[in-house]
Formats: sequence, C-alpha cells, structure tokens
Amino acid sequence: MPELPPRVKIVEVGPRDGLQNESEQIPTATKISFIQSLVDAGLTDIEVTSFVNPKKVPQLADAADVARALPAAPGVVFSALVPNAKGLERAVEMGIRRIAVFTAASDAFTAKNIGMTVDESLENFEPVVCGALGAGMSVRGYVSTAFVCPYAGEIAKERVREVTQRLLAMGCDEVAISDTIGAAAPTDVIRTVGFVLDRVAASMLALHFHDTYGTALANVYAGLQLGISTFDSSAGGLGGCPYAVGASGNLATEDLVYFLDRMHVATGVTLDKVAAASNVIAEALGRDLPGKQWKRLRIYAGLRD
Amino acid sequence: MPELPPRVKIVEVGPRDGLQNESEQIPTATKISFIQSLVDAGLTDIEVTSFVNPKKVPQLADAADVARALPAAPGVVFSALVPNAKGLERAVEMGIRRIAVFTAASDAFTAKNIGMTVDESLENFEPVVCGALGAGMSVRGYVSTAFVCPYAGEIAKERVREVTQRLLAMGCDEVAISDTIGAAAPTDVIRTVGFVLDRVAASMLALHFHDTYGTALANVYAGLQLGISTFDSSAGGLGGCPYAVGASGNLATEDLVYFLDRMHVATGVTLDKVAAASNVIAEALGRDLPGKQWKRLRIYAGLRD
Repeated sequence: MPELPPRVKIVEVGPRDGLQNESEQIPTATKISFIQSLVDAGLTDIEVTSFVNPKKVPQLADAADVARALPAAPGVVFSALVPNAKGLERAVEMGIRRIAVFTAASDAFTAKNIGMTVDESLENFEPVVCGALGAGMSVRGYVSTAFVCPYAGEIAKERVREVTQRLLAMGCDEVAISDTIGAAAPTDVIRTVGFVLDRVAASMLALHFHDTYGTALANVYAGLQLGISTFDSSAGGLGGCPYAVGASGNLATEDLVYFLDRMHVATGVTLDKVAAASNVIAEALGRDLPGKQWKRLRIYAGLRD
Repeated sequence: MPELPPRVKIVEVGPRDGLQNESEQIPTATKISFIQSLVDAGLTDIEVTSFVNPKKVPQLADAADVARALPAAPGVVFSALVPNAKGLERAVEMGIRRIAVFTAASDAFTAKNIGMTVDESLENFEPVVCGALGAGMSVRGYVSTAFVCPYAGEIAKERVREVTQRLLAMGCDEVAISDTIGAAAPTDVIRTVGFVLDRVAASMLALHFHDTYGTALANVYAGLQLGISTFDSSAGGLGGCPYAVGASGNLATEDLVYFLDRMHVATGVTLDKVAAASNVIAEALGRDLPGKQWKRLRIYAGLRD
C-alpha cells in the first residue's frame, strides 16, 4: 500500500461554507466565539467569511464585522472568500491576509452559481488575484464540481487540470479540488487528481469532499495515498443538506480528525475541542448537526440531550 | 494503486442484524415482503433470521415462520444465525441450507454478549458446525470486535487470525471479520486483515463494517485493495443506532452499491430496488432509515415526504 503523509493540514471552512446557507441569522458575536473555539481546537487555517454581495448571502452580510473582531491568534491564517474587485476592496480594508476565489470545472455549474462561464470567471478573477498579491495577500482557488456536476454530469479530468493550472499560473498558492455534490468515489479521485498531479505538485493541492453519500473519508484516503496532505472540512458537518435533514453536506471536521487520528496521521487538532466549537453553532441553531463524532461527543458532554 | 476486484459479493444482513434490535415487532408477512424485494434487487446472499432464544430477541421469535415462508428464489442463498444445538435443530427442521455462527476476538465482548469466553464459544460451536455440515448445510462464521472492543479496547491481530483459522478449521467456508462498533480506519484493516491474509485466502473472508463514524466505505476500499471481494451490509442502514437517532450502525446496502457501482466493481445488485426493499421496513417502522442513498431515492420516489 502507498505510504500516507505523516501530517495533514486541515482547512476549516465551517464559518463560511458551513454557515452560508443557514437561513437563521447567527449573531456576529456567536460567530466570533465559534472561530475562537476553532482556534482553541488547534485549527490553523480557517475560512471565516465571504465578502460577497450581502443581498445574495445575508448570513455573511456581517463579513466586515467578523473580520474586525477576529481573535488575536499567532500562527493562524484567517481567510475570506472574495468574488470580485469590490469584495477585495472590503477584504483589504478589513486587514484580511488571505483570500479565496471560487470557480468550477463545469460551465453549467458556474452559469447557475455565479452567472458566467468558467473562462469568464477566470478572467474576472485575474485582476482580483493580481490586486490581492499586490496588497501582500495570498490566494487560494476553488475548483468546484471537479468530478461530477449536478447539471452537466461527469467532468473531464483534462478540464480540472486546466482550470487548476490557470489558477496557479494566476498566483494562487493552493487549489482546492472540490466534489461539490459528494458523488465521487476513490477511483474518481485517482483518475482526476492523479491526472492533475502529473503536472502539479501535491503541496499545491487541497481536496474538498462532501459526505452526501458516505464516500468522503474513502476519498480522503485515496487522496492521502496520492500524497495529498491538505483537506477541507466543516465543524460538525455544517453546511449543505442537499436532500434531507440528516443528510450531510460538508465532511465534518470531527469525523476527519477521528479518521486521521486513528491512522496516526498528525493534524495538531483536538477532536473534542472541535466538537465544543460545533456546539456553539448547534446551540445557536437549536438543532443537531450531521457530524457523527459530533453526535457522540455531544452526548458524552451531556449537551442538548 | 492496487487493482480492485472486478466483482463483489454482497451479503445482505438486514432481515437479521438489521431488525434484531428493533423494539417494534415487524409482522412476518412484512419481513417476507422485505426479503422478496431484496431478492428482486439482485441480492443473492441474505441472512434472513436467527434461531436464537425468542425471549432474548423477540423480534426474531418468528424465525420458523420466516423460514417456512421464504420465497422460491433459485440461486439465492438464505442463511440464518444459529447460536446452539437447539437452534440448529430448528434450522434443520425448517430446511435452512446455510447457517452462521457468531463469536468475537474479545473475551470481554463475548462475556457480555453470549455469557462465555471466545474459547468457550468456539467449543460450544464445534458440535453445531459439525452437525450442520453433517446435515449438508454450509456454515459462515463471524468474528466480532475484530479491531476494537467497546470493553477491552484495541484487539491484537494475532487473536483475530487465530479465531478466524479455528472457525475455518472447524468447517466454516467464510469468516466475516467484523468492526462491531465502527471504530476502524483503513490502517486497521490493512494491519489486521492483511495479517490474516498471510495465512488465509481472500476468498474465505468477508468484511463487515459499521458506519458509526463514517469510516465504513473507506474500510471497504482498503479491503478491496487487499483483494477482499465479499462485504456485508444492511438495507437502508438498518440496525444499530449506538449513540443517537440518525447515527448509523450497519453500512447501508444502498451506500455500498453506489460506492461499488461508481468504481465499476460489479455487484449484480440494483440500487433503487434495494431502496424499494428498505421502504418496506421504513413504512412498517414509520420512520426514516439512516442510509444516505436511501434518503435520496426515497425522496425521488416521492415516498414519505
């Protein structure tokens, strides 16, 4: 069997990707408490908000307030999604040091999601990424629907590699190859990510899996076997219930940490402290979260039932 | 990457392992309808009941009635769990052609579960297995808690191999190495199952995973990479909610079939027909099942919400 990397970096996307579709407005102070708890759990890379149009994502309308109130946390990188020049301006103003830009490998997906083709989105980002680098920021890119698109079906590996390479050429230092609808299995990861790795260093890639059909950890394992050592996850499995209450969206950070702990892959993250962070949001939403380890730890802590 | 087996046999344990802990009594006719639907879905190996003491497992008190009413299904193997000589006698009488015997790799677990040590359970089974073989039946063995025991913690791989070899020496033609509490990760599978495979052919082994913490499909993938081609699962993810409603126990057959379909590993099983079988039990119980693909297909079919 291929050897696994000894250490993995987890990029926590709960405060942004996890919360963005929640209709119940979470108070800014609660978000800050959540973020502080994530830092306390040992997470060093946290996507905290998005400088998107507040009308489009009301939950993240407090992006500036969140950015202003971020805790002092030496060694922790707080990043924010930035969709355009206007968003970049706000992010710079708020002292954000790392941004993320979001595109996909499927034109059908970007058309529905951001109203342009993939190529248009890349052209749109070019001045944003350039401006960010000029302002001394670093930039991460997302390639969404990298395996299957809900509108266009199977995605060609060539397209994923092309978009990844264009983001890197633009100045991104990391590209998150994302299984947006959670449809992928390990053979997809080997086929597509393996193909990208023929031209791109493993250290430039992150993998972003959703656990919609229970395949997320199997895909993480396939990624580890390919030498990938950066994975995205969301505390408590927050974010995206595409089919039903209880069906999960994002891979839960607790479940990822358990999995890596169990395989002696170091993360620097403390499982029960992540669950404590998730509890902050579970309490605010007044409902259970989908993460499996969260459920176990929530009960052991005597919280909520 | 190691090549995957082109074809997998799924052993469906829903009617026995899946239902045994349900407190609401399912009518025998409903069980038969469930089993018929599983056959219709293409499942060829179905554990249908247990000839256990009816006082201990009231849900399976109708074992004889289930056995009597089994559908005519050429090429399908219906098996039943048999704990002792009395159970064997009933199974023989009912025309059952394949039985399963249940032990573990942890004395602490068998003590709590069946009131004897592992060695005592093996001694106890010897005449049962012998009698079954003499009656022309075939026998499967379970080695429960093969990775982690809820009472004794980590389990030595040497012990798992020893118990597996003793079951095979006794006359079992297949041993299901079982992660009873769903704690294992792929490195556990490689360590323990890999060690068993140094002395036992892959064709004699099945793997039985629970999805308690979302690791089941990752473990299946590790098993496939080791050359294992028989996996247990339970329709809809029926069986075992060890921590909370919504937390899953058995790996759902639908999720396993999706995973294998997606990787082009043949099963002969039709995903949406398994979901239809699970619906029979979901309707009888009046609640949702934990399986993720079941949730998707249930909604697409317009069932229950």
